[in-house]
Amino acid sequence: MKEAAGVRGAPGRVLVEGTGLIGTSIALALRERGTEVWLSDADAAAAKLAADLGAGTVVPDLRDAKGIADVAVIAVPPADIAATLALAQDQGVADCYTDVASVKQLPVAQARKLGCDLASYVPGHPLAGRERHGPAAARADLFLGRTWALCPLPETAPAAVGVVTALVRACGADPVHADPRTHDHWVALVSHAPHLVAAAMAARLAPSSVSPDALRLAGQGLRDVTRVAAGDTALWTQILRANAAPVAEVIAAVAADLAEAARTLAAAAAPEAGGFSSPDEVSAGLGLLDRGRAGSARIPGKHGGKPHAFSVVQVVIADQPGELARLFNAVGLAGVNIEDVRIEHSPGLPSGVAELFVRPGQVPALLDAMEAGGWPARR
Amino acid sequence: MKEAAGVRGAPGRVLVEGTGLIGTSIALALRERGTEVWLSDADAAAAKLAADLGAGTVVPDLRDAKGIADVAVIAVPPADIAATLALAQDQGVADCYTDVASVKQLPVAQARKLGCDLASYVPGHPLAGRERHGPAAARADLFLGRTWALCPLPETAPAAVGVVTALVRACGADPVHADPRTHDHWVALVSHAPHLVAAAMAARLAPSSVSPDALRLAGQGLRDVTRVAAGDTALWTQILRANAAPVAEVIAAVAADLAEAARTLAAAAAPEAGGFSSPDEVSAGLGLLDRGRAGSARIPGKHGGKPHAFSVVQVVIADQPGELARLFNAVGLAGVNIEDVRIEHSPGLPSGVAELFVRPGQVPALLDAMEAGGWPARR
Repeated sequence: MKEAAGVRGAPGRVLVEGTGLIGTSIALALRERGTEVWLSDADAAAAKLAADLGAGTVVPDLRDAKGIADVAVIAVPPADIAATLALAQDQGVADCYTDVASVKQLPVAQARKLGCDLASYVPGHPLAGRERHGPAAARADLFLGRTWALCPLPETAPAAVGVVTALVRACGADPVHADPRTHDHWVALVSHAPHLVAAAMAARLAPSSVSPDALRLAGQGLRDVTRVAAGDTALWTQILRANAAPVAEVIAAVAADLAEAARTLAAAAAPEAGGFSSPDEVSAGLGLLDRGRAGSARIPGKHGGKPHAFSVVQVVIADQPGELARLFNAVGLAGVNIEDVRIEHSPGLPSGVAELFVRPGQVPALLDAMEAGGWPARR
Repeated sequence: MKEAAGVRGAPGRVLVEGTGLIGTSIALALRERGTEVWLSDADAAAAKLAADLGAGTVVPDLRDAKGIADVAVIAVPPADIAATLALAQDQGVADCYTDVASVKQLPVAQARKLGCDLASYVPGHPLAGRERHGPAAARADLFLGRTWALCPLPETAPAAVGVVTALVRACGADPVHADPRTHDHWVALVSHAPHLVAAAMAARLAPSSVSPDALRLAGQGLRDVTRVAAGDTALWTQILRANAAPVAEVIAAVAADLAEAARTLAAAAAPEAGGFSSPDEVSAGLGLLDRGRAGSARIPGKHGGKPHAFSVVQVVIADQPGELARLFNAVGLAGVNIEDVRIEHSPGLPSGVAELFVRPGQVPALLDAMEAGGWPARR
């Protein structure tokens, strides 16, 4: 396998097997870097749609595709990775191979069992996704600034790792290395367990005995904690089953902490404890709050970067067409760069609040611009 | 007590005792409706700051304030409500009284014990807050479109309920009635338990044995599930202690569901089970996912309104001053009203994606405008 071209920049020729959201997004990203991309999918319509979106050229028959690519990206469901890899290696479609499954021990174990060539296989997992599926939801920028786990095996050739690393960087992502077992523990902790925890909280709201009036009291906190619980049940059952042991370990620990907090609070409320325990007693029993705060402070900001210290300026705006244009015009004329925006308003009410996130040094200029434009603003 | 003025519009004269975030925001909202607002706080500097912000006039000495208001709003910490109410009633500062504590059984029980006049007391709880505290963070629009719980007691006079209801509506909020016990169960379910659940998940990330590389794999899901866990520990200990029994009940049930899911997954992964249980077995054991999905579907959208069916259009934008102005100018000229915006971009990269939320009927006009302006856009 020649290494130079692959390591220096985007791989020259890539085959994407499986043109769903992730496969097609990889294809689009590589096409922007000038890579020649070939597409294949068991669903011919999905492959054609990806090609129509500019993701590459459909391979009519993989049996005629020997040597077509430097790298083949296996972007099929986790349970199908190993079989697809074995077939692709039999056909000799590429010099090296990677996959994108969100669990790594399962496909690796199956690939070993099927006798796949592990020297040319670099198991991978891009940490990016969207709530929508399929090639139509694909985006060339899906991986920009995202983390992409690579899990080379003891057998994996360094040259293969180099080529797949170049592919990851060409997609704009940051590679991070871990062995498959460590990877699966990590995703159990940061993705799979949180999903079940959100579901367990949301499940408390399901019984019809919970009044709709109770849910009118819901705030952004509840919505955030439970948001991911709206995800597809069948898909998540498959994911959790494929990473069962590490997920079980994390949620058992979460359950134990919550049961302990429940005991502390039940004791605090018991009449024989004199109505309410002292603040110190309850505080000691709820050490979970301090541990939770410490844990949450370790989570990096969005896109895996360091948490940003943007300042927030709140501006009251009228809820009508053109108002945001007028606002951003004024912001732009003041030379201020908006890093993020949140808009809050109640439907039907005449005004709302735009929260503008800017670098701290730009706050005075922004406040001046808002005052000059007649918008009530507050840091 | 005269009812007419109070029921028809904003109360004419209001005393706010406690000029923190909530008290000052109520004062600001009422001032915009023409109410004469008096301010008082044990911290004289806080009261003066609220007055400087235009929230009203400081009362130098409540002993000289007999009959000063139609309604007194007791906006002090939950544990101090009853004592403050008793003193205010002794001084006869108002015709009727309400409070804003996030728990209701505790202040009501204490008010009974102190022999407060319950006929003129309408316990209340506005469902609004911010991550910042104090009068400087106050906003006149804090309660716009929000739910505001009122918990009149059997002894409470209907006229007092009428006046406090008028105050709630004058602040732009929607009143919802519940007895104190029901209220406390509701907030345990939608606010206090979710906080502990978020803390329990975040606590798993705290140990130094969790690699920073693991946290680089964190996505938006983990950030959402754990966000509220960053809240102030002392404040939350106080809140949870004041609502201990209902919170204990909810989190014990969450813990039981998670322990059951952990058992299902551990069994699925056990070697004697043949590596992995069948999808059907795991699916049956993870009924929690379906219940979680059903519960999450019951949560209303932000501000307590019905969930909206906005369409999302994604637009690739350059990360530079003036770009958003140019974009929103084009949007405004097309007559399209943006309901919400999200901007995603990696620091240092030349472009990002703006997600524009619009009513479905406005999507074609928006896409046309984006195309005309040269922005790559996709629904």
